[in-house]
Amino acid sequence: MRAFTAERQWEKFHDPKSLILALVGEVGELSELFQWLPADDAARLASDAPLHDRVGQELADVLLYLVRLADVVNVDLAQTTMSKLQHSAERFSANDFRGVAPEKT
Amino acid sequence: MRAFTAERQWEKFHDPKSLILALVGEVGELSELFQWLPADDAARLASDAPLHDRVGQELADVLLYLVRLADVVNVDLAQTTMSKLQHSAERFSANDFRGVAPEKT
Amino acid sequence: MRAFTAERQWEKFHDPKSLILALVGEVGELSELFQWLPADDAARLASDAPLHDRVGQELADVLLYLVRLADVVNVDLAQTTMSKLQHSAERFSANDFRGVAPEKT
Amino acid sequence: MRAFTAERQWEKFHDPKSLILALVGEVGELSELFQWLPADDAARLASDAPLHDRVGQELADVLLYLVRLADVVNVDLAQTTMSKLQHSAERFSANDFRGVAPEKT
Repeated sequence: MRAFTAERQWEKFHDPKSLILALVGEVGELSELFQWLPADDAARLASDAPLHDRVGQELADVLLYLVRLADVVNVDLAQTTMSKLQHSAERFSANDFRGVAPEKT
Repeated sequence: MRAFTAERQWEKFHDPKSLILALVGEVGELSELFQWLPADDAARLASDAPLHDRVGQELADVLLYLVRLADVVNVDLAQTTMSKLQHSAERFSANDFRGVAPEKT
Repeated sequence: MRAFTAERQWEKFHDPKSLILALVGEVGELSELFQWLPADDAARLASDAPLHDRVGQELADVLLYLVRLADVVNVDLAQTTMSKLQHSAERFSANDFRGVAPEKT
Repeated sequence: MRAFTAERQWEKFHDPKSLILALVGEVGELSELFQWLPADDAARLASDAPLHDRVGQELADVLLYLVRLADVVNVDLAQTTMSKLQHSAERFSANDFRGVAPEKT
């Protein structure tokens, strides 16, 4: 994404707030694919044609902007995400949270 | 994320619509960190303490749910994203789009 | 919201992009309240204590930023929304769309 | 929106999680209109043709789903929003917060 952006001289558009809006746009397109699907059949429907390809495209768009945003704020996304998952694994121990969704506070 | 989820028996919560809502929640937390920052100073501010660490945490949370969502709809996120970027590179040629943001249609 | 903003001299923060990020933040908080609820029981659960009050607060926050955003871009939100609903009523006739969700294109 | 929905027998689609996803879709379309605009010129650009009409349409779409969501969870949106604004006016006194954005905690 860094090379892709530089080749097009798009750095001037990629301040963090603009990139978050672009990310939100892609999350919106992802949401629209699922909004009226029955909740308990959505995974199956999204795993097959014709929905599967469109879902993949939107997931990819979200990731592309996420990676680009991480780059402009100097976050090592892979490393930070592995640390966050490790932290969550400790915070929500399997014994305490088995089958129970943590409540948002 | 697949192992993390299985250990906690959280698969029942992870239908696609629920995961998108969780993703939106994390995108919202990311947005809140930036909402009142001056646009042209946001990258610098987010690259330093104390904001840098919080931004990294939220970016990580978004990625974790994105990866989990890709998993439950059987999308190979890395492969699909590389293809999408390649496709965008062809669609928006550097010559035609140098310094110009593509318009949403 | 216009008076509330002026009294605090917050106009400088309320450019449209910042307001959309603030709106996204509130939509994220709304999403988090619902993310792990069973889809077919969510309306009932959100209609009672303790969730009802929190849901109301988040819906209100979304509306407040929406109204403020409409104000800064000179949109008459009430009038425009009534026109849009009228337009949708014509576009999706009850006879053609009875029981059928329109597909996103 | 309640009458519009009933005439089309769309109530079955309008559980809260689905409505939030639809709302997110519209917020995404709104975001896309603004994502690459210069922050300090966005209000002016959105107040004129051709952007003004499109922005109005997206703001209206967000409000329509917000009103519908409030309806299915039995929230009096107007009343709750007025209370919330009053509450915010007390929480963020003009004297303490003049020219200062409240920090998210």
